[in-house]
Amino acid sequence: MSEQTIPVVKTIAIAGGTGKEGKGLAYRWAKAGYQLIIGSRNLEKAQAAAADLNTLLAGKAVVTGMINQDAVSKADLAVLTVPYSAHVESLQGLKESLAGKILIDVTVPLVPPRVTRVQPPPAGSAAQEAVQIVGEATRVCAAFQNISYEHLLNDEEITCDVLVTGVDKEARSIVLKLAADAGMVAWDAGVIENSIVIEGMTSILIGINKQFGVQSAGIQVTGVPRPSALEK
Amino acid sequence: MSEQTIPVVKTIAIAGGTGKEGKGLAYRWAKAGYQLIIGSRNLEKAQAAAADLNTLLAGKAVVTGMINQDAVSKADLAVLTVPYSAHVESLQGLKESLAGKILIDVTVPLVPPRVTRVQPPPAGSAAQEAVQIVGEATRVCAAFQNISYEHLLNDEEITCDVLVTGVDKEARSIVLKLAADAGMVAWDAGVIENSIVIEGMTSILIGINKQFGVQSAGIQVTGVPRPSALEK
Repeated sequence: MSEQTIPVVKTIAIAGGTGKEGKGLAYRWAKAGYQLIIGSRNLEKAQAAAADLNTLLAGKAVVTGMINQDAVSKADLAVLTVPYSAHVESLQGLKESLAGKILIDVTVPLVPPRVTRVQPPPAGSAAQEAVQIVGEATRVCAAFQNISYEHLLNDEEITCDVLVTGVDKEARSIVLKLAADAGMVAWDAGVIENSIVIEGMTSILIGINKQFGVQSAGIQVTGVPRPSALEK
Repeated sequence: MSEQTIPVVKTIAIAGGTGKEGKGLAYRWAKAGYQLIIGSRNLEKAQAAAADLNTLLAGKAVVTGMINQDAVSKADLAVLTVPYSAHVESLQGLKESLAGKILIDVTVPLVPPRVTRVQPPPAGSAAQEAVQIVGEATRVCAAFQNISYEHLLNDEEITCDVLVTGVDKEARSIVLKLAADAGMVAWDAGVIENSIVIEGMTSILIGINKQFGVQSAGIQVTGVPRPSALEK
């Protein structure tokens, strides 16, 4: 790790980015001035999602669509937003393209139908599973698992904080900056072994949503000075 | 479970209650009108802690001190506030006294010196470890793991919410009521398998405290109607 240079992030790939999570994050980062590539296993789907975003962005930025491997290869940093059922296979297919880069894993290991029950995978968390697959060549972080993605595309204020875990502090600091650029308040939540707390919080928030008949439950950190979100 | 009656909680035992966590909770509940028994392995220590609390309560309530087994036997509901290193042994010693009661496990499975790293026990969480030891005769819940206990004894407002897990919904609802009576906002966080999220959040909050040089980091649930705390 000590020989790696601090990457300057200009281009971000969202692998498995055709769903609302990936599109929501891509929209925010494109607005903040990053170059965005939506990745999918299916080129046409990736290009359709990119076209949707370009309509929404109305000329403020240009998003492109590629198959996942190409998207990751052309980016400085990759984000993975796939259903948990596609987690292992996606990472195996992207391992080579991810080498030397930071990966932000957004995956929550939900096991339907009991999505309100925390059910960690054998690795301990989805993020630790990612580390097992991609190895030390990729700096794995995890973030954004608790965000209600509807709010991202609607330019609404995000009242849910982002907790960032990762294999090293420098990689986490880069993710903290990206979260702030997307208009969110983010906190360094420590080592990758802490990821199950944040992944599992999603199950608890789904349960609270069900109790109150809403889809907006989130969490905020209290008792410390609040960094401001840097939405652009 | 279906044959059990809803327990009316009047007397609460705090096993291992001579530390700041146990005394803080006891103080709040005594003020709210509950009868409190501080338990310890050492009778003199239990009585000394009770005497401290009685001074603080200035006649508003009377707290007594007993050895742990006696305290739990005489109570309607028991709370366990011991360091993780004493968790298994304490529960083994209290198994018989706990039968037929609700247990609120406050234990966080911290493994010094790496207390900012989530390190779940083989059972998955301290609370699930408690279930393994006490069995189905006791209704295990877990709560209050994220609270900064200094604030309890100082009559300060608690800006950290309480997330309550437990083996059944009715037991969790009783814990929700106790948290509100102690002046805290509490949420039903679901089944006991979700406990690692809340226990592990303590490690993340310790890490955030270290980053900011404070001891007050907590979390709040956002995006849903906030129940009011019922401090008395």
